[in-house]
Amino acid sequence: MLTNPRSDRVKAVRSLQKRSVRQRTGRFCVEGPQGVREAVRHAPARVRDVYLTPEAAARYADDIVAPARAERLWVHEVSPEVLAAMAESEAPQGVLAVVDDVPATLAQVLAGRPRLLVLLTHVRDPGNAGTVIRGADAAGADAVLVSDASVDVLSPKVVRSTAGSLFHLPVVTDLDVATTLASLREHGVRTLAADGAGPSDLTEVDLTAPHCWVMGNEAWGLPEETTALCDDVVRVPIHGHAESLNLAMAATICLYASAGVLRPGPTAR
Amino acid sequence: MLTNPRSDRVKAVRSLQKRSVRQRTGRFCVEGPQGVREAVRHAPARVRDVYLTPEAAARYADDIVAPARAERLWVHEVSPEVLAAMAESEAPQGVLAVVDDVPATLAQVLAGRPRLLVLLTHVRDPGNAGTVIRGADAAGADAVLVSDASVDVLSPKVVRSTAGSLFHLPVVTDLDVATTLASLREHGVRTLAADGAGPSDLTEVDLTAPHCWVMGNEAWGLPEETTALCDDVVRVPIHGHAESLNLAMAATICLYASAGVLRPGPTAR
Repeated sequence: MLTNPRSDRVKAVRSLQKRSVRQRTGRFCVEGPQGVREAVRHAPARVRDVYLTPEAAARYADDIVAPARAERLWVHEVSPEVLAAMAESEAPQGVLAVVDDVPATLAQVLAGRPRLLVLLTHVRDPGNAGTVIRGADAAGADAVLVSDASVDVLSPKVVRSTAGSLFHLPVVTDLDVATTLASLREHGVRTLAADGAGPSDLTEVDLTAPHCWVMGNEAWGLPEETTALCDDVVRVPIHGHAESLNLAMAATICLYASAGVLRPGPTAR
Repeated sequence: MLTNPRSDRVKAVRSLQKRSVRQRTGRFCVEGPQGVREAVRHAPARVRDVYLTPEAAARYADDIVAPARAERLWVHEVSPEVLAAMAESEAPQGVLAVVDDVPATLAQVLAGRPRLLVLLTHVRDPGNAGTVIRGADAAGADAVLVSDASVDVLSPKVVRSTAGSLFHLPVVTDLDVATTLASLREHGVRTLAADGAGPSDLTEVDLTAPHCWVMGNEAWGLPEETTALCDDVVRVPIHGHAESLNLAMAATICLYASAGVLRPGPTAR
């Protein structure tokens, strides 16, 4: 059992809280049982090390430890002090993993003939980015695209708020908005800007063809030079007095509207 | 201009950050231009005092100061230090108001023959509660119901995340869940529990009759004794590998599904 919170290994894990270190090493941290379980289950080849306190190892024996050992992953027991020293969050519930970043590319995503995508442009809030990734996963989207000048999706707060969805679908980052919109169009993917002042209502838009929702920044929305490059500008209807919806809610409503058209009918439980 | 951050007035405003003081005085604070503007516009009779820094007073002259003066409200210029001492948030953007709590009752809401409601049971996270109130407003819900043992909807974090929607529709708090479900049923409002394991799929459910979405706690969902009291238990379809949606997203999807049925067709811009 690792018990020294000042060891080099602990410092190395903790340093992954810095974006520069994540970029240099190509690794990042996943904190908490939900994210670690999904990494082990859906992307075991990317998991370098799993760290658990003895209590967590007992609690997640079937959920995390057994599947990790079956994949021959490194599973380490650590003292609660070591885990706390490694983690960014206050309560990672005794579980943390170091995972390789395997960046997806737009070319790969387009080669898969995607039907439903979402592009986040200049998203800054970690919770919003993570929640949209989680919502895109739930809605059955084929990938999430993230522009340059956005929050780092490998930061602990984003990783946590994806609740494991980061390992369920490709997330392409650092994209130039204009180039990406052009590539999507070339590949027959309609680009739909979500904007409260858009001329088309969500309930009127044809969502049967492959399309990509284009979401703006939390505070200032989409600049006109971006909406001008999109095939349509769509507003989520506001029925009450609310001025707008927040980014994650608007994205979720758009993605679920698409899911209802692309995958109509009830799903299995 | 008020310039002494240690004055009794400043202390009195700051003390409204405590739930006990809010309950004793029946007042609460609204921080930031969006919330204050909506309070002045939609509930001027409830606004006791508006505080602005000189910079904010200039910036929001048309948006806040003029309408507040037109309603003969007390508008005070304060130094940035005074505003910072009053506020809970780090960046209230120079604007704060003290507002009377005018509690709505379930009887009042039911007397209005509501068609769309949402009941939050044991919601603990301020951001979730505020986001659901904002989403309910946007979806055109008639009111938001909040059970006892929930977060205080007048806490600064909840007020902020409602983005002014707190002044757009009635929010009834401190409700006993079982009694509320019985009252809703008596008044012909169908109760639909949202639960990932529910037998009915959201796309199959009849949403044409008046109904209330019943949402569980963020972590442990709805207890069986609550779902047993509801008319139906409905799951939001999950198309990808995500295990679940977070509370605010699930509520927003359900409310917008209702809005699409209750208010079909495009809305005016």
